[in-house]
Amino acid sequence: MRRILLTIEYDGTNYAGWQRQANALTVQEVLEDRLSRLTKARVTLHGASRTDAGVHALGQSAHFDTPSNIPADKFCYAVNTMLPADIRVCASREVPDTFHARFSTKGKRYRYLMHAAPHAGALDRLTHAHVIYPLDTARMHREAQALVGTHDFAAFAASGSVVRDTVRTIYSAEVTREGAEVRLTVEGSGFLYNMVRIIAGTLIGVGSGKLEEGAFARAIASGDRLDLGVTAPANGLTLMKVFYDPKDMEMGDAR
Amino acid sequence: MRRILLTIEYDGTNYAGWQRQANALTVQEVLEDRLSRLTKARVTLHGASRTDAGVHALGQSAHFDTPSNIPADKFCYAVNTMLPADIRVCASREVPDTFHARFSTKGKRYRYLMHAAPHAGALDRLTHAHVIYPLDTARMHREAQALVGTHDFAAFAASGSVVRDTVRTIYSAEVTREGAEVRLTVEGSGFLYNMVRIIAGTLIGVGSGKLEEGAFARAIASGDRLDLGVTAPANGLTLMKVFYDPKDMEMGDAR
Repeated sequence: MRRILLTIEYDGTNYAGWQRQANALTVQEVLEDRLSRLTKARVTLHGASRTDAGVHALGQSAHFDTPSNIPADKFCYAVNTMLPADIRVCASREVPDTFHARFSTKGKRYRYLMHAAPHAGALDRLTHAHVIYPLDTARMHREAQALVGTHDFAAFAASGSVVRDTVRTIYSAEVTREGAEVRLTVEGSGFLYNMVRIIAGTLIGVGSGKLEEGAFARAIASGDRLDLGVTAPANGLTLMKVFYDPKDMEMGDAR
Repeated sequence: MRRILLTIEYDGTNYAGWQRQANALTVQEVLEDRLSRLTKARVTLHGASRTDAGVHALGQSAHFDTPSNIPADKFCYAVNTMLPADIRVCASREVPDTFHARFSTKGKRYRYLMHAAPHAGALDRLTHAHVIYPLDTARMHREAQALVGTHDFAAFAASGSVVRDTVRTIYSAEVTREGAEVRLTVEGSGFLYNMVRIIAGTLIGVGSGKLEEGAFARAIASGDRLDLGVTAPANGLTLMKVFYDPKDMEMGDAR
């Protein structure tokens, strides 16, 4: 058996998220189905991130074990011929069996895109959340700096989430603008369920003047979800990259 | 009667282009239908550009005459509530009846987006043409400079096009890259049928090394379509802006 790591892009619009579900089509199901047909063996994928319905990915990572002897770097070409156009595997490589797409993760980068204008965008409607209010992006960027560092982000999780350890390290958070497009890019060791969408919703609140600056600092101190803004829509969110330690991905000489 | 000018965005994926057709759904038909319902009078739209099937717009312009007394700047809000999400009117204003969205045009800006990578993009597949070859964007930008100026672009029209005057002025042509995205932006007094897609296809040829540099100069001299590359796919093309003389849009004092 060999362990193969895939880097995956998808337009999440038409899927009920990444993770396999009993009665809704997901990205994992489509990929597992095609990989199973390709390798003539049942494939189980282990994804780095369980993206929600409507969330996109330009750099999801997932691994699977296979008895197939297809060269590792050719899996992407082979499976892409079988996939719908809204899912693409952009790279494939062999990794040691000590590597795990989810548990070996060192961090992730997410992007949240907003279309700030009186009218929604037509062409970017599937990738940008429409914000009808003018946004003060300098104020948003300033607010976002309070996220950087190691904090207890208990307030930043969707209610009902049952993670015990809510301490995460945010490496960077940037808000930039180009025309009507406002872009949040955030990198961290890990993110709680809905955390980036809650961050985006809070920044929209701060940027539009509906929330006072200092919301992140207050929420980190209080642990209270109510100190933050609404959860921003799923369509604006894209998983950009999953970070690993290159050493964890190296194949040993024993091969 | 008042003349109203609309600025329109659309995702062209699901339409057979701008212009009304007997047996295919077009952007013009959808807009005319909603504007007619809104104003309770038959609306005929005059668009600046007849974009092809699959071509997008962030700045199409179109005018119509109406007896309606809806304030001119409110048409966009009213009609957007009736439109599918892939068509948005981003602005509306009154213009004098001497103004014509097509005949008053002073120029247009188009954008052509390419995704240059071994695998197609999943998230940008509706707005970017996939180019499987590596592209030398410096070479493409250099080649594009041969377009700038006033030339007879007879070679740059789809075969079967019957325009008599094929002289156009190109104001600027730029090729830039950001990651896998290669972007052509071209501004000119006007464009022949399929001209931007032929320009893009030729630049892809030059950028991938399949065509020699100097193709544009040769085609301008020869008038021969065969000196140029293939017509690039429609989905990469977006009409960005239609330029008018602000004086032509001013309402007189006689109002």
